[in-house]
Amino acid sequence: MISKQQQKYIQSLQIKKYRQEYQSFLVEGAKSVLELLNSDFLIDKIYVTEKFAEQIDSKSISIELATQAEIEKIGTLQSNDSALAIVKMKPNQAIICNDNEYVLVLDDIRDPGNLGTIIRIADWYGINKIICSENTVDFYNPKVIASTMGSFTRIKIWYGDLEKYFNRNNNLPVYGTFISGENIHKTNFSKNGFIIIGNESNGIRPEIEKKVTDKITIPRFGNAESLNAGIATAIVLDNIRRYN
Amino acid sequence: MISKQQQKYIQSLQIKKYRQEYQSFLVEGAKSVLELLNSDFLIDKIYVTEKFAEQIDSKSISIELATQAEIEKIGTLQSNDSALAIVKMKPNQAIICNDNEYVLVLDDIRDPGNLGTIIRIADWYGINKIICSENTVDFYNPKVIASTMGSFTRIKIWYGDLEKYFNRNNNLPVYGTFISGENIHKTNFSKNGFIIIGNESNGIRPEIEKKVTDKITIPRFGNAESLNAGIATAIVLDNIRRYN
Repeated sequence: MISKQQQKYIQSLQIKKYRQEYQSFLVEGAKSVLELLNSDFLIDKIYVTEKFAEQIDSKSISIELATQAEIEKIGTLQSNDSALAIVKMKPNQAIICNDNEYVLVLDDIRDPGNLGTIIRIADWYGINKIICSENTVDFYNPKVIASTMGSFTRIKIWYGDLEKYFNRNNNLPVYGTFISGENIHKTNFSKNGFIIIGNESNGIRPEIEKKVTDKITIPRFGNAESLNAGIATAIVLDNIRRYN
Repeated sequence: MISKQQQKYIQSLQIKKYRQEYQSFLVEGAKSVLELLNSDFLIDKIYVTEKFAEQIDSKSISIELATQAEIEKIGTLQSNDSALAIVKMKPNQAIICNDNEYVLVLDDIRDPGNLGTIIRIADWYGINKIICSENTVDFYNPKVIASTMGSFTRIKIWYGDLEKYFNRNNNLPVYGTFISGENIHKTNFSKNGFIIIGNESNGIRPEIEKKVTDKITIPRFGNAESLNAGIATAIVLDNIRRYN
């Protein structure tokens, strides 16, 4: 039995304000929780179904049995027959771009599904640092966490003022996609640098565009007007990794 | 005023069974309807808001004024301040892969958003023929149409038995993504052929795998377990178009 008070606390973590107040967030579903158990995140507590409990080694963590219906009631997933964890947020840590490393920069990505997909793609392409503008959707949003498919455990993320960030860190190439940019099929990408992905509707803001040193473009062969932010990220990273 | 009977008819077109019975489907929102007006689809009727009516040349089509609330009530979009069209479905036409042309093959894509995104990506990369297995989600589903962002107007689509299709058309390369396939960064893609995209959870079915002549793989540089179907489609097409 999950107490009324605990239910209320867990449901409050669906809202950013309370996540920040308690510095905690939710991880739901088998795949995400299994990845969480292999990560360096601090786990407060996990509610698990009997069936899922058999799959995990729970010596060192606080687990509590619950039914599927209870877990679904306190969580955000429509169907969850395995687990829900309450996890400590990590501090907002400064990110530096090292040699032979790319850092992804998100300028106001607003859709949780898009952010989750972008994190999963970054993880596929071996990028584990992401810098987000202050208006980018919260990394700890349950929809973001779910749509990373476990990749949230391998990504270092920092939220802050992008303009100030680039004023302090301006000695590396900064790539950004623009219609007028160089064809990425022909671009000689540097060994390291930043890649800026712009907002879903408005692209990269003018003040951030000023920080871009290398404008690039994804060549179009047909008639669609645009690609979504996740697709654009995947194609740019695939082109970078072809040679780096 | 939209009559009760007409409301009922329009709402029935949200369901596949009735779309097939009436051979009609819905197109909603400004962007999709504007692209529709520039296409060869036969339009039965368009309900438009006064504001949107000013944007279109309506000499040759049957339009009827409606309020935003009325349009939202009969349609599927949460917010629609422009238009909803009732459109005739096209016949299920046989597709042939010509010289210098790629045809996309979808083996049981189930999510409407994924199909819409794949159609938009195909259109970006200049591919306008798609073959779908019988269990692939319906092209005329309102969510599919909406998520193509207008690209549905430029795509020829055929639904049928993929195995039988390839038994009749087997002289061209058939590419499919598998973990054990050749790295697409090193693949020398043919001038034309088929690209099979598998189901979101199960990939390409074994009986369809037998028709694949060239197994390919998207190289992974990090730790994410997989990429979603839309992302995989985009990366494969980008790699094909690099040289073709």
